[in-house]
Amino acid sequence: MPRRENISMSVIRRLPRYYRFLTHLKQKGVTRISSTELSVKLGLTASQIRQDLNCFGGFGQQGYGYIVDQLCDEIGNILGLSNEYKAILIGAGNLGRAIASHMSFDDEGFRLVGIFDSSPSKTGTRINGQIVRDTVELEDFCQKEQPTMAVLCIPRDGVHTVIERLYNLGVRNYWNFSHYDIAMKYDDTVVENVHLNDSLMTLCYRISNPSQK
Amino acid sequence: MPRRENISMSVIRRLPRYYRFLTHLKQKGVTRISSTELSVKLGLTASQIRQDLNCFGGFGQQGYGYIVDQLCDEIGNILGLSNEYKAILIGAGNLGRAIASHMSFDDEGFRLVGIFDSSPSKTGTRINGQIVRDTVELEDFCQKEQPTMAVLCIPRDGVHTVIERLYNLGVRNYWNFSHYDIAMKYDDTVVENVHLNDSLMTLCYRISNPSQK
Repeated sequence: MPRRENISMSVIRRLPRYYRFLTHLKQKGVTRISSTELSVKLGLTASQIRQDLNCFGGFGQQGYGYIVDQLCDEIGNILGLSNEYKAILIGAGNLGRAIASHMSFDDEGFRLVGIFDSSPSKTGTRINGQIVRDTVELEDFCQKEQPTMAVLCIPRDGVHTVIERLYNLGVRNYWNFSHYDIAMKYDDTVVENVHLNDSLMTLCYRISNPSQK
Repeated sequence: MPRRENISMSVIRRLPRYYRFLTHLKQKGVTRISSTELSVKLGLTASQIRQDLNCFGGFGQQGYGYIVDQLCDEIGNILGLSNEYKAILIGAGNLGRAIASHMSFDDEGFRLVGIFDSSPSKTGTRINGQIVRDTVELEDFCQKEQPTMAVLCIPRDGVHTVIERLYNLGVRNYWNFSHYDIAMKYDDTVVENVHLNDSLMTLCYRISNPSQK
């Protein structure tokens, strides 16, 4: 039985990287990998990887390594990638369109069931075959579809009212590209923030301060 | 004189958040903020903020708080946001187009001087008024423009050869949306990775394991 108590966020954040790398190996037809080889390719120590996987019960055998296919599936299960959580996306601007068409939600545990925007120039258009709905339909849609997660691709100023509506509709999980601090307002939500500006500014700092790389 | 030695990445990664929040206050016309108020709004302790800012020489006065405008400018300077580093973007697919049109490079220390793609269906089109060039022009362009940074919005499999060309052209700084591990191959590069898939998978894990929020 996997042990799953008090696992640190830094361990959890390494899991997608393992999963991604193992999927890549699988696609290349690699069937087995030693912990040393895996660690070199991932830029981690073999003991770090063992420790991480031990949090979930441990995999692989001493001196035998890992069976790629099996480890990949196990990590996918730990991540919960087969859950197909219903997701909706709010904001069909440049970023929203890119996220809706670029990301493979199906491979990462979600199913994108609805795309919303409030601008008449966007509603009615299609992204990857899916129609962009008017945000006035949000209540009806959510009551019927009961989405688990919402992707927020709207500017900070618009988030406040949308969040309130989504929260009242029972949506508690957010993939947040806006700069609005959702978890600060609602402490019973699960929020993954993607702050592209922060990442770009951090890069600027690191370029400007080469000794701090 | 600001002290700037061995500042931890976790401090550095909080700076853009301070900057973002202070810019927002500035836009709202707020001129002064107490360290307590700042800490509440940012979800950090006042002592944490003081400690962070002390790494750079300290700002604000005991019992007086921070002058928003001044602190914002100081943090902008620390981040190096006025540098206007020349940047190029490779890959004008959905994500590349969104990044090129959605991001305010100018506000984050960069100037987007060129966009490249190898697909004939994309070259010659325009994004935000800028023409998408053929990647065959990369050498000529970089020798002339000497960009400091490259944004990589191409699939993992295409990165290997592009990186080799960019590295040979002297580009050492990357904002990397691909899954290719650049720093592993070239250890004298500065790389900010944005792994959208990893973020989405982490969210899936956190939804699937509510006790681990």
